[in-house]
Amino acid sequence: MAGTRFSYVKNFELPDPMLPDTYLVVRIDGHGFHKFADAHEFTKPNDEPALELMDTAARAVMDEFKDVVLAFGESDEFSFLLRKSCSLYSRRQSKILSTITSYFTSVYVMQWATFFPNKPLKYPPSFDGRIILYPTAQHVRDYFAWRQADTHINNLYNTVFWALVQQGGESTTQAHETLKGSVSSGKNELLFSRFGINYSTLPARFRKGSVLVRQLVEEPDKRPKKKVVVLHSDVIENEFWDTRPEILSS
Amino acid sequence: MAGTRFSYVKNFELPDPMLPDTYLVVRIDGHGFHKFADAHEFTKPNDEPALELMDTAARAVMDEFKDVVLAFGESDEFSFLLRKSCSLYSRRQSKILSTITSYFTSVYVMQWATFFPNKPLKYPPSFDGRIILYPTAQHVRDYFAWRQADTHINNLYNTVFWALVQQGGESTTQAHETLKGSVSSGKNELLFSRFGINYSTLPARFRKGSVLVRQLVEEPDKRPKKKVVVLHSDVIENEFWDTRPEILSS
Amino acid sequence: MAGTRFSYVKNFELPDPMLPDTYLVVRIDGHGFHKFADAHEFTKPNDEPALELMDTAARAVMDEFKDVVLAFGESDEFSFLLRKSCSLYSRRQSKILSTITSYFTSVYVMQWATFFPNKPLKYPPSFDGRIILYPTAQHVRDYFAWRQADTHINNLYNTVFWALVQQGGESTTQAHETLKGSVSSGKNELLFSRFGINYSTLPARFRKGSVLVRQLVEEPDKRPKKKVVVLHSDVIENEFWDTRPEILSS
Amino acid sequence: MAGTRFSYVKNFELPDPMLPDTYLVVRIDGHGFHKFADAHEFTKPNDEPALELMDTAARAVMDEFKDVVLAFGESDEFSFLLRKSCSLYSRRQSKILSTITSYFTSVYVMQWATFFPNKPLKYPPSFDGRIILYPTAQHVRDYFAWRQADTHINNLYNTVFWALVQQGGESTTQAHETLKGSVSSGKNELLFSRFGINYSTLPARFRKGSVLVRQLVEEPDKRPKKKVVVLHSDVIENEFWDTRPEILSS
Repeated sequence: MAGTRFSYVKNFELPDPMLPDTYLVVRIDGHGFHKFADAHEFTKPNDEPALELMDTAARAVMDEFKDVVLAFGESDEFSFLLRKSCSLYSRRQSKILSTITSYFTSVYVMQWATFFPNKPLKYPPSFDGRIILYPTAQHVRDYFAWRQADTHINNLYNTVFWALVQQGGESTTQAHETLKGSVSSGKNELLFSRFGINYSTLPARFRKGSVLVRQLVEEPDKRPKKKVVVLHSDVIENEFWDTRPEILSS
Repeated sequence: MAGTRFSYVKNFELPDPMLPDTYLVVRIDGHGFHKFADAHEFTKPNDEPALELMDTAARAVMDEFKDVVLAFGESDEFSFLLRKSCSLYSRRQSKILSTITSYFTSVYVMQWATFFPNKPLKYPPSFDGRIILYPTAQHVRDYFAWRQADTHINNLYNTVFWALVQQGGESTTQAHETLKGSVSSGKNELLFSRFGINYSTLPARFRKGSVLVRQLVEEPDKRPKKKVVVLHSDVIENEFWDTRPEILSS
Repeated sequence: MAGTRFSYVKNFELPDPMLPDTYLVVRIDGHGFHKFADAHEFTKPNDEPALELMDTAARAVMDEFKDVVLAFGESDEFSFLLRKSCSLYSRRQSKILSTITSYFTSVYVMQWATFFPNKPLKYPPSFDGRIILYPTAQHVRDYFAWRQADTHINNLYNTVFWALVQQGGESTTQAHETLKGSVSSGKNELLFSRFGINYSTLPARFRKGSVLVRQLVEEPDKRPKKKVVVLHSDVIENEFWDTRPEILSS
Repeated sequence: MAGTRFSYVKNFELPDPMLPDTYLVVRIDGHGFHKFADAHEFTKPNDEPALELMDTAARAVMDEFKDVVLAFGESDEFSFLLRKSCSLYSRRQSKILSTITSYFTSVYVMQWATFFPNKPLKYPPSFDGRIILYPTAQHVRDYFAWRQADTHINNLYNTVFWALVQQGGESTTQAHETLKGSVSSGKNELLFSRFGINYSTLPARFRKGSVLVRQLVEEPDKRPKKKVVVLHSDVIENEFWDTRPEILSS
């Protein structure tokens, strides 16, 4: 066969299975999304359609990959938890990483027009991804707590920052200067005293990020069915996990 | 800071740099494209718009990533050669793999309507990817020869197969049976004697696949400029490589 | 400096840290020890001095590497458990693997004459090693249970096999034939009925392997001190682990 | 079978084959040899029996592993080149690394008394190892040039340093101070003017390190036979390589 002489090159494809019985987290990040957000005039500090598009792509990933049991998103990033017993593609790292990243990207672009009917894409958005292994349930909980704590920190900062700029008339340089060294309580106070904004009443989506899980959904005249739902719940405290033991148990 | 207590989880992100000064090939494959091609009624054995869309996505990858010095595509797969001195993302494997796969996917979906104006996407197409390292120029030549030999083998088979079905009235099962154990010369002969098709006159795109390189393109009243061009050249013989020494030299 | 021009080659040394907070098992195996045992006329089915030499090398490893909290040995292999929080050599795989394997080998050769004063080494014995990661305590327990079950299976087989040969006058080929398809109870029965050997009264070292742990050792007129001791305990049931929670807890 | 329930733990042993057709360098380093050299009263700056013992262990490695085609040693380290086509142990990294490191250690300890008949080992010496992949012959040449340049730099420094201490009566602190910032020519000059030592006449073993290759050795009344020989040749210039093309060719 014509191919035989060259097919030795296939031997350079090395195996890359990941450790069995270990939780996998696939985290996807928007590539150059600062520039992408500017080019597509995303609202600051949070663009609701952009966040909903991210949620939509993440939900599609969960609908397609049953091993994904939890997803958490904020800004231009999404983390997917694959259950520890996952045997998708024999746990080959490159295959899992590339397929999920590609699928997420595909839905993001395909659904763009649904969320931005009047803003055609100016250039192709893309995402990078990585896979992180966690040995125990506690590590997984701490991972998602880490991301949600990050969401809070970033969102509080951005909320005050853009209030100073958009309502306070400060330049972005001035706003950065105003916030330098400030702590959480100070930022809350500043938001309220200068702009009359009570941070805790802002949309939970902005403050908590998006949490996607599968749960029974009731529909009129139908049997309840397991569906992916988007929540904006706290994932740092115990309640979320205690009421959904299936996420970490398999 | 709220995040501090949890941020230890970042230590589980392990480094994955690839060997320096070694050629990198990123190969992307359509995920479940047999079904995707059926669902979107791709012409058999070759759907020209579908192939052109693949070429368009590959060209966009080369426009975006200057380290990609050669690409070769056939059917629903594309291989990208990154020059051995490539230091993109410090040669981190997951980052390079996921970013290129995502970018390719993004362009594929974004440009779909250009090539299929009357066929909206029924569901999101996706691709998986892998990276293979090759130590020397000879390995790289043999890799691309392997893919092009594969193109030839597959295309010849598919051409005869679909002629038997579409023009010869055989069922797909019969056609498989007819071709069992046949050699190249036999398939060529059968094509000609039964269907009047001279295989060597079929479009080079089908027989040779697509070869993308950067070369000087002349434009009227302008200085010649390096641009990515789509060729359907032979990459098995020496000529292609001898006339483009820059592909393997850096 | 003279070295500067060449020192770029150091960049080819890639990082190889292992996942944090995960149990590490280093397993060392005698290399070609079937031949080595014959060349040095080890007693069949078990050579006590040879086993004691293995234990001595393992004990030295535990004295030298405080992160090793448990060791289990049988025949020409030894497994070492490094506690999950181990940060030895920043958890670099090659460094840990090579250092422990080398140290074990060094003690084995250095102490050879202590156990075989009249048998000089005919050629250098060597060992290969590997590292396996286990995410949870249960995996670690199952690993050591696996090795001890293996010890039992091998030792029972070898005990009957060599009784057939040494006392029963069978050739090794006949002995293999006699044992083909036999189960545990059959082997026990055969040992007793033909050779008057009650398997359960054979030395625990042969039946259970060697288990090395650190525990408080009382000495006259001294404070009790933590020392590495060699046991031949069961590590399949709970008791061993329940009474030594420190092995798996850190 | 008793082992069955636990044998799933074997699945955690992951494959680790190295890239085919790529040169492998195994470098072994003495572990804590500064202290080991002091404890065993090695002569400063170079202890000839200690270096000869290293050469002996390296020669044994080459006699045992035919894939090792070149070795270079200095001080307490040795580098072994495995030819690029090496398929030893299916190129499994841990197996190759641990076996060679173990074998080297074994010979070092076993032959200790030959070189130090009056100095029993006070404690077990050990070595760590690593494997580095090099894609091309040029990288390999540069690797060995790097090590030999390092030998020169270290030996020149140590020669002057110990002359200052042993003959010049300086404390080690003073000697470090004297040499701070000095260049090669300065050190050569100082050696000659103060101690009458012409650096270039010192033993080649100290200045160049040890180079082990296989070559035809003539013996009286016998056919010439390929044997491992210890040279102290230059490996930076072309001659060494030009006259031994087989080292890099396979």
